[in-house]
Amino acid sequence: MPEPAATADTEALLEANAAFYAAFEQRDLDAMSDVWLHEEHVVCTHPGWTTLRGWAGVAASWFALFQGDRPMQFILTEVAAVVAGDAGWVTLDENMLSGSQTQTVAATNVFQRVEGRWWLVVHHGSGIATG
Amino acid sequence: MPEPAATADTEALLEANAAFYAAFEQRDLDAMSDVWLHEEHVVCTHPGWTTLRGWAGVAASWFALFQGDRPMQFILTEVAAVVAGDAGWVTLDENMLSGSQTQTVAATNVFQRVEGRWWLVVHHGSGIATG
Repeated sequence: MPEPAATADTEALLEANAAFYAAFEQRDLDAMSDVWLHEEHVVCTHPGWTTLRGWAGVAASWFALFQGDRPMQFILTEVAAVVAGDAGWVTLDENMLSGSQTQTVAATNVFQRVEGRWWLVVHHGSGIATG
Repeated sequence: MPEPAATADTEALLEANAAFYAAFEQRDLDAMSDVWLHEEHVVCTHPGWTTLRGWAGVAASWFALFQGDRPMQFILTEVAAVVAGDAGWVTLDENMLSGSQTQTVAATNVFQRVEGRWWLVVHHGSGIATG
């Protein structure tokens, strides 16, 4: 049985994860900026991309990705969260609907708890080969 | 300046990460088994695969991958390690040489420290698109 404290930790972690996908879906750069820790050690690997290191480069990638104008919707499945002290990670499938296209991306999101709040420090997404 | 304790933590984390790639390179299932925490919450996403959840499925995937007979060599670049309490993660590029083929995979490896040792709990690899 999880302890009450652990459950609250996990809920807060999942809320931070949900905020990330809300910002992504809404192409909201301010909200995306608020999700991430603004440090040199943050890393982001978009599907098929090389890994971006440091908040400046990561922010620039979201700015570029948000230039598109097609509405996007995420259905998140297989969501699993683990809390280990002041670190936590969420693994899941991002089922992206954009127009008539659907694509599934396997994602790993690592968060650090700083001053009582969970901040995204690693996002790694990879396309799932079909057929 | 990192504190001495933090440096020792990071060194131990990088040693655990190196043990993972040594096991991978040597196709050594016993050594690979020794690297991972044998728990339900471990996850592994091989490039282009769906995410495997739980040690049993993860172990089976390594068994399948190790059936090949081509020698493999990894050159690890862009290696960055972060320790946050009893969790830590290493992000890097896996430059795989196999015969005359080379392939670069962006990887995220998350470890948990249990009973004083770092154990792999998340491996996520994704191919980097070229051209």
